[in-house]
Amino acid sequence: MTFEQLWRDLDPIGRSASSGGYFRQPFGSAERECHAWFLEQCATRGLEVESDGNGNTIGWWRAASAGGPGVLTGSHLDSVLDGGAYDGPLGVVSSFAAIDHLRDRGFVPARPIGIGAFVEEEGSRFGLACLGSRLMTGATTPEQARELRDRAGVPLLDAMSAAGLEPELGTGHLLENVGVFVELHVEQGRDLVDRGAAVGVASEIWPHGRYRFDFTGEANHAGTTRMEDRHDPMLTYAMTALAANKQARLSGERATFGRIEAVPNGTNAVPSRVTAWLDARCATDDSLAALMAEIERMGHDRAGLDGTVLAVTAESVSGAVHFDDDLARRLATGHAVGDWPIIPTQAGHDAGVLSAAGIPTAMLFVRNPTGVSHSPAEFAETADCLVGVEALATTLERLAGEGAAG
Amino acid sequence: MTFEQLWRDLDPIGRSASSGGYFRQPFGSAERECHAWFLEQCATRGLEVESDGNGNTIGWWRAASAGGPGVLTGSHLDSVLDGGAYDGPLGVVSSFAAIDHLRDRGFVPARPIGIGAFVEEEGSRFGLACLGSRLMTGATTPEQARELRDRAGVPLLDAMSAAGLEPELGTGHLLENVGVFVELHVEQGRDLVDRGAAVGVASEIWPHGRYRFDFTGEANHAGTTRMEDRHDPMLTYAMTALAANKQARLSGERATFGRIEAVPNGTNAVPSRVTAWLDARCATDDSLAALMAEIERMGHDRAGLDGTVLAVTAESVSGAVHFDDDLARRLATGHAVGDWPIIPTQAGHDAGVLSAAGIPTAMLFVRNPTGVSHSPAEFAETADCLVGVEALATTLERLAGEGAAG
Repeated sequence: MTFEQLWRDLDPIGRSASSGGYFRQPFGSAERECHAWFLEQCATRGLEVESDGNGNTIGWWRAASAGGPGVLTGSHLDSVLDGGAYDGPLGVVSSFAAIDHLRDRGFVPARPIGIGAFVEEEGSRFGLACLGSRLMTGATTPEQARELRDRAGVPLLDAMSAAGLEPELGTGHLLENVGVFVELHVEQGRDLVDRGAAVGVASEIWPHGRYRFDFTGEANHAGTTRMEDRHDPMLTYAMTALAANKQARLSGERATFGRIEAVPNGTNAVPSRVTAWLDARCATDDSLAALMAEIERMGHDRAGLDGTVLAVTAESVSGAVHFDDDLARRLATGHAVGDWPIIPTQAGHDAGVLSAAGIPTAMLFVRNPTGVSHSPAEFAETADCLVGVEALATTLERLAGEGAAG
Repeated sequence: MTFEQLWRDLDPIGRSASSGGYFRQPFGSAERECHAWFLEQCATRGLEVESDGNGNTIGWWRAASAGGPGVLTGSHLDSVLDGGAYDGPLGVVSSFAAIDHLRDRGFVPARPIGIGAFVEEEGSRFGLACLGSRLMTGATTPEQARELRDRAGVPLLDAMSAAGLEPELGTGHLLENVGVFVELHVEQGRDLVDRGAAVGVASEIWPHGRYRFDFTGEANHAGTTRMEDRHDPMLTYAMTALAANKQARLSGERATFGRIEAVPNGTNAVPSRVTAWLDARCATDDSLAALMAEIERMGHDRAGLDGTVLAVTAESVSGAVHFDDDLARRLATGHAVGDWPIIPTQAGHDAGVLSAAGIPTAMLFVRNPTGVSHSPAEFAETADCLVGVEALATTLERLAGEGAAG
């Protein structure tokens, strides 16, 4: 099948009629429909499907002559809330299209080639990004995962069971025969636009943390309570959000409060509590720690003035990921049209988790004309996507072909 | 029945086991249970129950000899989200207890005495405070009310029907024979504490507005989007919330952002939109207008810097209410223990709506030792509540007795 046919199949699933954005939260109906589509595509191509008890799945193309450690590609099918079409699905669709290309041109892989679909990459339901790959590599333990609950209070295991899965959290055997992983992904910035390149290769992922800020004050009547008698946690939050933005802006880093919950969240009540989540990313582990220390200090200072209390909990912190230098150079060079640029990213990916677990890993990026991502406006030109498919096919040929290095 | 017995009956309904606060949203199960309790109390006392198509109910005590315009008391049974036990129910419970006192001492009213329960006083479900009294006085039209929806998108009429009501919005006949209204309410500040008085009489209600602030920006990836490329509406909101607080503090007025919704409200996405509701109250209509103009100006200025757009919608604005001076003085004076203080309030009440509709109206306040309200911690001493019941009984005696002025 062509890339365009595959893309059209997947495109309407979980799309909001009002915003045009996607709601493909893990173990929900739209994401499960995407997963069923994935299994169907594997079946159509005769791929051998293997799953683990975390919700991750790989379809293997094992040619008769193939042996040795496998070459894994693929990505994820879930989305952020009201997200774009490309983040995740572009990698999965391109993987199927790349295998179709390779077969069309009569390529016979000397190694198994697998297409993976990792679960809950975005953390949009259970708050922990790359949950599927973290469980399968042991970066997150089953005990930690069992504590996770979605916004409605549903535990992870219950959500999986409700979706018809038989959960068995833990590392499992799915990665046992994986020798190398390559994830294709839409770029989420404009680096490739500036460089005038349709595809690029990743050098590293910035350190990244998610922190829950609980601001506790005292509920009261919004009309009768004098301003000076209040302990209003909304004010402490507001100052902390501005401080986080300012610090990240000054240092060229990232700090975002995108999620907030007020309690009781009534118009005529001073809130008793405001909880907000900070997403922070920096060039180095040290600079992330320094940024967080400064934001927390400013939050606590303001809490002192407001008579409120701030408690900060790190929900997940991922250190810097440096992808395999040799592999990146090997993929980026030797093309008739010139080398592909090698660029860093501030976004987390399953590729980062597998790399941190010791699997030689690379990422291919496809140009994003606006840089916009995690938004209904996320976009890539079809022409660039086709270049991406061809780049992935070439990459798989190099890694799984007769001459592939041990 | 004693005040304490009545209070115990109502106390557990809709109380959260975790916070101890009340969730009695209109037409929900807890509020309907309170309403059933109200009807039962009317039946026990042989009061004639009349209802309108807005969800308001009055139980009338019509002694054989009673005639002329009625004396209405009562209050409301709904609560804010996670609210206190006293705001509303104290007035209803005290009304039943006062009638029991009057009957015990053999008082025969020359005028009908009614106990009213007004619906959705807090606006906690449909966003418009005093909805029941506003509909019955025509301050809100049926057309306006039909547009109201709760947070889940349920229209008012559907919510009423789902609760088994047969809605017929509009002024109806329920107030036709009401000559005077007296609402007893827990105080929501500490004026009576400072004056060392268990009860007081209201002089006026401050002007009060609720405004929806829609901050629109551009959704984007929280990691990859450079801070300087963002149009983040959360920042515009944060600055506006701080500005509102500062302006109200400087002028001795009130401005509160207690309710907020971010879209898509994901940790790793710059929000596309933040909507927040401002509750503002000032001593005069002019000062409310001036406060709002200043807050809006500061919000728009910041939106210009952030590349976001701010739109402000007044969801409800109530002008100052000056209660009937003569009536207040008549109730406050001539007591053996000294005059009751006459004090203003910053809180809206159904009494304000009925007063604005031309019905001579008064309010009695019962001391609140902490001033805390709209909170699980809202409280009044039982001894003060009993003084309140006695004060209300005395008031009804004056207004409905043989010597009551025309």
